[in-house]
Amino acid sequence: MNADQFFEIVDGWQLKITKFDPEQLIHYGSNLLCGNGYLGYRGTLPEWGKEEYQACIVSDTYDMADGKWRELSNAPNGLATELLLADQSLDFSPVKNLNTNLSFNYQYGIFKRNSKLKNVINRSSADKLEVESERFASYSNLHLIANKYQLNNLNQDKLLKIRLGIEGDVWDLNGEHLTNLKNDYETEQAVLYLQGTTVESKIDLVTAMSFNFKQGLVKNMRIISRAKSIYLELTIQPENNSCKFERNMVVYSSNDLTDPLAAAIKTAVQAREKEYKQLLIEHQQCWDVKWAVMDIKIKGNLLDQLAIRFNLYHNIIATPAHSEYLPIGARGLSCQAYQGSAFWDQEIFNLPMFLFTKPEIAKNILKYRYHTLDGARKKAQDLGFAGAFYAWISGKTGQELCPDFFFKDMISGRKIRNHFNDWQIHVSPDIGYTIWKYYQVTDDLDFIFNYGAEMLFEIARFIHSRVHYNDRQDYYELIRLLGPDEYHENIDNNVFTNYQSQFVLKKAIYFYHLLLNKYPEELARIKSSIELTETEITAWQRIAEKFYLPEPNQANLLEQFDGYFELEDTTAEVIKKRLINNQEYWGWPNGIAVFTQVIKQADVIQLFTLHDIFNQDILAANYDYYEPRTQHGSSLSPSQYGIIAARIGRSELAYQYFKKSAFIDLMSTNKAVSGGTFIGGIHTAAAGGIWQLIINGFSGFKLTKSGLEFNPALVEEWEELEYKLNYRSAILQINLTPAKLKIKLLDMQTEKPVEIKVKVLAREYILEPDSQLQIKL
Amino acid sequence: MNADQFFEIVDGWQLKITKFDPEQLIHYGSNLLCGNGYLGYRGTLPEWGKEEYQACIVSDTYDMADGKWRELSNAPNGLATELLLADQSLDFSPVKNLNTNLSFNYQYGIFKRNSKLKNVINRSSADKLEVESERFASYSNLHLIANKYQLNNLNQDKLLKIRLGIEGDVWDLNGEHLTNLKNDYETEQAVLYLQGTTVESKIDLVTAMSFNFKQGLVKNMRIISRAKSIYLELTIQPENNSCKFERNMVVYSSNDLTDPLAAAIKTAVQAREKEYKQLLIEHQQCWDVKWAVMDIKIKGNLLDQLAIRFNLYHNIIATPAHSEYLPIGARGLSCQAYQGSAFWDQEIFNLPMFLFTKPEIAKNILKYRYHTLDGARKKAQDLGFAGAFYAWISGKTGQELCPDFFFKDMISGRKIRNHFNDWQIHVSPDIGYTIWKYYQVTDDLDFIFNYGAEMLFEIARFIHSRVHYNDRQDYYELIRLLGPDEYHENIDNNVFTNYQSQFVLKKAIYFYHLLLNKYPEELARIKSSIELTETEITAWQRIAEKFYLPEPNQANLLEQFDGYFELEDTTAEVIKKRLINNQEYWGWPNGIAVFTQVIKQADVIQLFTLHDIFNQDILAANYDYYEPRTQHGSSLSPSQYGIIAARIGRSELAYQYFKKSAFIDLMSTNKAVSGGTFIGGIHTAAAGGIWQLIINGFSGFKLTKSGLEFNPALVEEWEELEYKLNYRSAILQINLTPAKLKIKLLDMQTEKPVEIKVKVLAREYILEPDSQLQIKL
Ligand SMILES: [Ca+2]
Ligand SMILES: [Ca+2]
Repeated sequence: MNADQFFEIVDGWQLKITKFDPEQLIHYGSNLLCGNGYLGYRGTLPEWGKEEYQACIVSDTYDMADGKWRELSNAPNGLATELLLADQSLDFSPVKNLNTNLSFNYQYGIFKRNSKLKNVINRSSADKLEVESERFASYSNLHLIANKYQLNNLNQDKLLKIRLGIEGDVWDLNGEHLTNLKNDYETEQAVLYLQGTTVESKIDLVTAMSFNFKQGLVKNMRIISRAKSIYLELTIQPENNSCKFERNMVVYSSNDLTDPLAAAIKTAVQAREKEYKQLLIEHQQCWDVKWAVMDIKIKGNLLDQLAIRFNLYHNIIATPAHSEYLPIGARGLSCQAYQGSAFWDQEIFNLPMFLFTKPEIAKNILKYRYHTLDGARKKAQDLGFAGAFYAWISGKTGQELCPDFFFKDMISGRKIRNHFNDWQIHVSPDIGYTIWKYYQVTDDLDFIFNYGAEMLFEIARFIHSRVHYNDRQDYYELIRLLGPDEYHENIDNNVFTNYQSQFVLKKAIYFYHLLLNKYPEELARIKSSIELTETEITAWQRIAEKFYLPEPNQANLLEQFDGYFELEDTTAEVIKKRLINNQEYWGWPNGIAVFTQVIKQADVIQLFTLHDIFNQDILAANYDYYEPRTQHGSSLSPSQYGIIAARIGRSELAYQYFKKSAFIDLMSTNKAVSGGTFIGGIHTAAAGGIWQLIINGFSGFKLTKSGLEFNPALVEEWEELEYKLNYRSAILQINLTPAKLKIKLLDMQTEKPVEIKVKVLAREYILEPDSQLQIKL
Repeated sequence: MNADQFFEIVDGWQLKITKFDPEQLIHYGSNLLCGNGYLGYRGTLPEWGKEEYQACIVSDTYDMADGKWRELSNAPNGLATELLLADQSLDFSPVKNLNTNLSFNYQYGIFKRNSKLKNVINRSSADKLEVESERFASYSNLHLIANKYQLNNLNQDKLLKIRLGIEGDVWDLNGEHLTNLKNDYETEQAVLYLQGTTVESKIDLVTAMSFNFKQGLVKNMRIISRAKSIYLELTIQPENNSCKFERNMVVYSSNDLTDPLAAAIKTAVQAREKEYKQLLIEHQQCWDVKWAVMDIKIKGNLLDQLAIRFNLYHNIIATPAHSEYLPIGARGLSCQAYQGSAFWDQEIFNLPMFLFTKPEIAKNILKYRYHTLDGARKKAQDLGFAGAFYAWISGKTGQELCPDFFFKDMISGRKIRNHFNDWQIHVSPDIGYTIWKYYQVTDDLDFIFNYGAEMLFEIARFIHSRVHYNDRQDYYELIRLLGPDEYHENIDNNVFTNYQSQFVLKKAIYFYHLLLNKYPEELARIKSSIELTETEITAWQRIAEKFYLPEPNQANLLEQFDGYFELEDTTAEVIKKRLINNQEYWGWPNGIAVFTQVIKQADVIQLFTLHDIFNQDILAANYDYYEPRTQHGSSLSPSQYGIIAARIGRSELAYQYFKKSAFIDLMSTNKAVSGGTFIGGIHTAAAGGIWQLIINGFSGFKLTKSGLEFNPALVEEWEELEYKLNYRSAILQINLTPAKLKIKLLDMQTEKPVEIKVKVLAREYILEPDSQLQIKL
């Protein structure tokens, strides 16, 4: 891989695309996304439309338009622009010689374009018309996309027509979501709008647009209202051969407030009044606050620095931090793929970065799981279980969105009954695990009282109803499931799931006793609310004590599941030749990997990144065993292998996994379409995984019972690594060089100063307020 | 179906095939089989060879010749015959105008042929040469096939050459089994032999042949020894235009005794000395003893009478009654299909007829299961279980012969991992069930001491290790299995398997306590031999008490397995249209029946035929529900539906199922080849099922705790039904007409006369020695 073919590095925050490649169109749209957790506006030119994958994905707008797939809706495009010279449209079609540069600033999420148009009508070929535009999705007002637009090198004596519109015909994956379209130009406020209602969920979605000419004289204006769009056609007299305007696209839905249209118009007016410059300042302040604790700085490789920020940025904008009712989509808000829904990725991949920097964001997302408890309870009940079995694909309500028949057998054309929805049970303990981690980091007992305990109890209940006691072996086990490795369905005692489930059971019991002893009223309230009985707690205890936790064998290996070692021992390379059709699914029920030891992604290794309970020899043995057998068919896999590589002292291998993971989207190493299904967009879990790989891998950070621990394994390439951690409301700054680890307590937001215990390479230290540790490595 | 197109009825024992149809060749071979439980000689002409599916399948000769399939070996054909006139071979190729009549006598298993040869060299077309031959597989000497051969209408002045040989080139399904062939003509004894050794198992298999000319003069003789055969070429001078000889084919293997060659030669000599007529008398006496108790007589439909005898005959000759070390093959000894091995069919379909007529035969076959306990123990252990998990396909040793990959996905060409071998667990409780039935019929405690208890304990152990306790539901359940209906794999709580398993657990506990209280020394011996502990018994008790036994729902329906009623509700007719390839397997993992309620065979209905624990309403409701959803893709199915149809008073439907089941082979309604695999031969389980359908269905016989019960449901077509039952060494004769049921105690072989309790249509009677019951219906 060579970055040059994709982009130029401007600095550690910015990239520039000077060799526009129409083949990369779908990737540009996602990689250059402006977003803020409420909406995501794809990196397309204002002159582009649905053919160029223009879309503005809006959170909390789940709708099913095709009778099959429930996904997020796209707002009408309030930045739609058409330019006419002598009544002829200028052509911005994405071709090889488009002569457009794109650039993106990941510090503030600013998309810029510069186009130089040759051969424009009535002009010589050397005489290029220049178009510049810039935009960001505001973090100070989540409904706003602010935009600047400028035309240079115009003929002063020629009138220009500019159509500023709201286009309702946008790029939808599975059907058009907006019906009953209504549009108008509110002359009093000078705001254009287009409103529609979603097909199934009947959500009103409004895009409003205001503008403000800064240069150029508006000589005339007319309204072009079509079935799916409304445009203002402005006839402009250039000033100093230029024309310049600001523009605000505002999006509201009826899920935000009762009168989204009024709110959109009002915001559009306010934004116009405030002007682009001020809007940008306010927006940047929001980002500065984030980066103050979330940034990761490295020295030694500018491309890596940029790639790190790219991933941090995308994990941040994918996350609906403003809400406690919304999930992080597997592709964030970069497109409609994966139904805008959360998978286990959310807790295990997206959240750790927030947990350790801005835990209030992690809290909001965990509250989303609280608010979707009923969906999880329903799923459990429908399948004959108790408690909370969280959805494999979780949208607004938490009801299972994963259909029974998903993949297609590419040879027979028959649909395959995959069991992600009913057998991939680890999602519930994964959520429980993250609740525990949140508590461990924050000590936030209020969260436990109001949300965490109930969730953990319901997850424990689910585990209780899902385990089976093996009378003869005298242990509880988990049968017929999928672990993280999805190529092997219908397996028993997946070590990852067993350890994870037992861990969460123990935590549920822990909180039960904590509340019982110290906060009996809180417990009484929860118990009565979910009708929890003593008998259940006794059962959890019995199950936790007798849970089957497979141990490493004589070769130090953990068997991924019962019988795994007896499967055909081969590699992905070898079995790939057995494909009859290249688009075949490798897994269940009869795919090429099913009867082999080839796994899709980290599984035993995934266990190691979550649970620090095995020694280095075991880590190394399992790494050596599973690594060559892993296909990395999931973007979740490389970061986890990287973490363990770093932990066993193989930082150069970890670095290879860093490259593999950090550039998945940035260098478009993934396919956007597979088996006829669009699966492109930003791999937000891989983005979150990059944070883990650096912090937990290269800097060797672990949160333990007693405090913080570091076992640095910095890669040679990097001269320095700097980042911040938020631990129990204290902000720590970590500086790591090959020779030295510095830990500085920057800020202590609690009243009572706390001593923080730090362990570095097995030696223990105490970090006191206003102190700094400097440890030679 | 019309019998006429297949055969003519001679009487209630005999049929004749006068319109020879070459298309039916493979079926003739099986239907007209001479057999005696030791060997099966297919219904072919002596002049035929492997192209005409000539084979003589020999029990206890398991061998793998192709590296894949272990099957029974075929003996060299000691009846091979070639006729030469003027040094030209006479042609007996099976063509439409063969002009051969075949006939078979099912009373004594006698195969006859009569051929009239037109257009034979040197003769006018009206001048037909007649060939007659006749044979039987002797029951008085199991190694012997006796044969008569006669040529009529010969030219007195022309010499005839007859080649009498042993042909080693026979019809083998999966590779040639005999190597190191050795042949010779023992001049002193005048016996020809051919001997070979099986490829894998190194069994020596010998065919010897002796002959004796009764008419015609042997003018000359020479030996033709080839690589795979040896022939004697006899030049014959006809006497009275005829020639007539007797011939004996004798088969021995080194599994029978140490010097099979010597034994074969000796037997061949003895048979020649005894002559055909005497051999036949001795053989017939053996059959007379069998029929005295096993025959079923009906009046009113001669075709049905013949069909009944056909099925009884085939169940008898399929059964190695002479041995306690051999299984009943799913196709008996009619061909090599199904590996000459036992399935659950053996206990549930083949044995009941013997249990209630000649229980000593059932005992021998059950002892076979005892002698294969180690194979079953090994299978359990290999799969992580305890006790005895009997093989799905059980040969000599009881080790599992069912391969992991069995069917082929006809669309992709990939092999399918079916789970008959590891998930179809009901085979073990099915055996346990039959052990109990044997005990119930015979009161044979010696068998329990020496065989039955140990088997039951090991089966209980297996169930113990296979069940799972559901802590939350507080019951034990069986997860991930196949019931009798093989289209639905990987299911939970199959009612058939759950009830059957719990039943057998209870019987194991019953015998444990019986022995403990009355025969503690016997128990001590068994316990020490299999290291059985008190803890295990306690566990069995706990499991039996808390076994999940699904109850009928509000509509009186038992759900075949968890979730069955939620599957697509359709019929075999409808889904058949979804086949992409006609040879596709309908079941696992993605066949057309998998996600539907279409079932292959009786399953809930199968439970009803074994356990009389549900009332008539429940029987009727489930019959009405499952009947239209059953494809009857297994020959095991129709008889069981027939039994339940009769029980709920629908004898006309039962009669339709009788027809369906009784004529499977007789009218060749089955395919002999499917998916490239030969699956032809006699459906011995269907043969056994016919006995059940008549006795348990039409005469409504049940064995209950207190005695015998009859609820007759005779079909209108039949004027009378007569059969015998053997109950605790008493022989009862049952005569049933539409108006009357007569039960007569014929014989009481025990010292102490027993009163037998009989219940007819809910009224109780006592049958005393030498008494007779006559009950008006
Ligand atoms: Ca996945
Ligand atoms: Ca079968």
